[in-house]
Amino acid sequence: METKISYKDTEVVISPGSPFKIIGERINPTRRKKLAASMAEGDFSLVQQDAIMQVEAGAHILDVNAGIPGANEPAIMKGALQAVLEVVQVPLCFDSADPAALKVALENYEGKALINSTTAEEVMMGKILPLVKEYGAAVIGVITDDSGIPATPQDRLATARKLIERAADYGIPAEDVVIDALALTVGADHNAARVTLDSLRLIRKELGVNLNLGASNVSFGLPDRAVINTAYLSLAIANGLTTAITDPTKEDIQTTLLACDLLMGRDEYAMRWIKAFRKRSAE
Amino acid sequence: METKISYKDTEVVISPGSPFKIIGERINPTRRKKLAASMAEGDFSLVQQDAIMQVEAGAHILDVNAGIPGANEPAIMKGALQAVLEVVQVPLCFDSADPAALKVALENYEGKALINSTTAEEVMMGKILPLVKEYGAAVIGVITDDSGIPATPQDRLATARKLIERAADYGIPAEDVVIDALALTVGADHNAARVTLDSLRLIRKELGVNLNLGASNVSFGLPDRAVINTAYLSLAIANGLTTAITDPTKEDIQTTLLACDLLMGRDEYAMRWIKAFRKRSAE
Repeated sequence: METKISYKDTEVVISPGSPFKIIGERINPTRRKKLAASMAEGDFSLVQQDAIMQVEAGAHILDVNAGIPGANEPAIMKGALQAVLEVVQVPLCFDSADPAALKVALENYEGKALINSTTAEEVMMGKILPLVKEYGAAVIGVITDDSGIPATPQDRLATARKLIERAADYGIPAEDVVIDALALTVGADHNAARVTLDSLRLIRKELGVNLNLGASNVSFGLPDRAVINTAYLSLAIANGLTTAITDPTKEDIQTTLLACDLLMGRDEYAMRWIKAFRKRSAE
Repeated sequence: METKISYKDTEVVISPGSPFKIIGERINPTRRKKLAASMAEGDFSLVQQDAIMQVEAGAHILDVNAGIPGANEPAIMKGALQAVLEVVQVPLCFDSADPAALKVALENYEGKALINSTTAEEVMMGKILPLVKEYGAAVIGVITDDSGIPATPQDRLATARKLIERAADYGIPAEDVVIDALALTVGADHNAARVTLDSLRLIRKELGVNLNLGASNVSFGLPDRAVINTAYLSLAIANGLTTAITDPTKEDIQTTLLACDLLMGRDEYAMRWIKAFRKRSAE
């Protein structure tokens, strides 16, 4: 299944048959005080810097989050997306739980955006899915619902199915719903990662949809997080992950994702691998 | 399925349910001139050093190869294994294509060894499998046969099946045959790794046997080999790999394999991960 995201003439296809797609996570003021302060003042120079760095490092899509406590999220979202699109020409992923902020973003964007995200909670779907339909966007569906986080792969499959069925009720096709199988912290529960990996495989097999993870949460609270995060991405890719919200400016993330493409047969003559190596060597 | 390897009272179980098993690859004179020269002279001090280093770094089993052109392989094999067992108490994997060297090794070993390896070639199986049976060993079965390397996962499955059936003819149970799905160089054929990964999954699903790879060959001829090798191990583990012949003294290999155990739910309370981190930090 192909999820197509675009900005003007630039189209990005998320699918099992094409190279892995990186959604750059850095434009997010949560836990980044300096970035939050500048964005709140309408200064988007750091945002632009993050946009350029991430695209240089291989991001195909950029996540834009404008959630700053006490600030005017719709206005900051608009300012941020316009600042980003002044310096890079890639599709955007609008990251907010506020329908007003999403609406402003979608109104000020030329192309098919990705919305991050809805859960399978009824109230949430009722707010987000109409926007997805109205603006012809695609959406990340996170598999939690009104009863919380499903414990087993079978229950996560059922929740994913509910998301896709509800999207269909709004006229949104399955290929425009990217399922997020939820990366929980392995430090808190040593089976957490395994359940997510098994869920990815099951959802891919049964529903055929594209799959996303925010992959850095898995290592929270543990030492040497970078190794856990890259191993997790590799294991998840082997189980069907087709995109991730992550930070490609971290060299180990970038090289691991390129290596996985190479090893999964998505890098003919190892050309992208060798090109990226030459670029790193020249820096 | 459980493959049990032992040395005296020390038993190592290779199985999907237990932590990943590392077969240390360093005791091998091929392409190591200094080691080859000392082994040929009956000096096993470097061998002992490699044995200690690898077990310290997490090797569960040690591969012992004594193949030096022009030298007396059976005598060197005997000297090497005795030297190793003076300094570590772990099961051994005897690595030779010479039945005489294997016979000497098996005669001078107390426990259930692993033999590396037979192919599915008729002549080879006729030489190696009787020894496996006679000494109650287990064997690595590499899935090439008289027609070469099978091109597709289906053909590799058929070759694996032939190996297991032929072993059964000799009275060797399936759990004592560890299938090596053959890691070919991705630089020569960009689908090579994918075919191996798909073969692992198919063979595990259809035959349920344990699976091995010599995982460093995959990156031959490419830059930044370490990243490719660790990503490959992770992808292979997600596809069912339960053991690998590799070098745990390389920190990225060691940490990646520990991270995979953690993420696959084989490291309760992340205890092994944290312990290994503390050990690295103390060094």
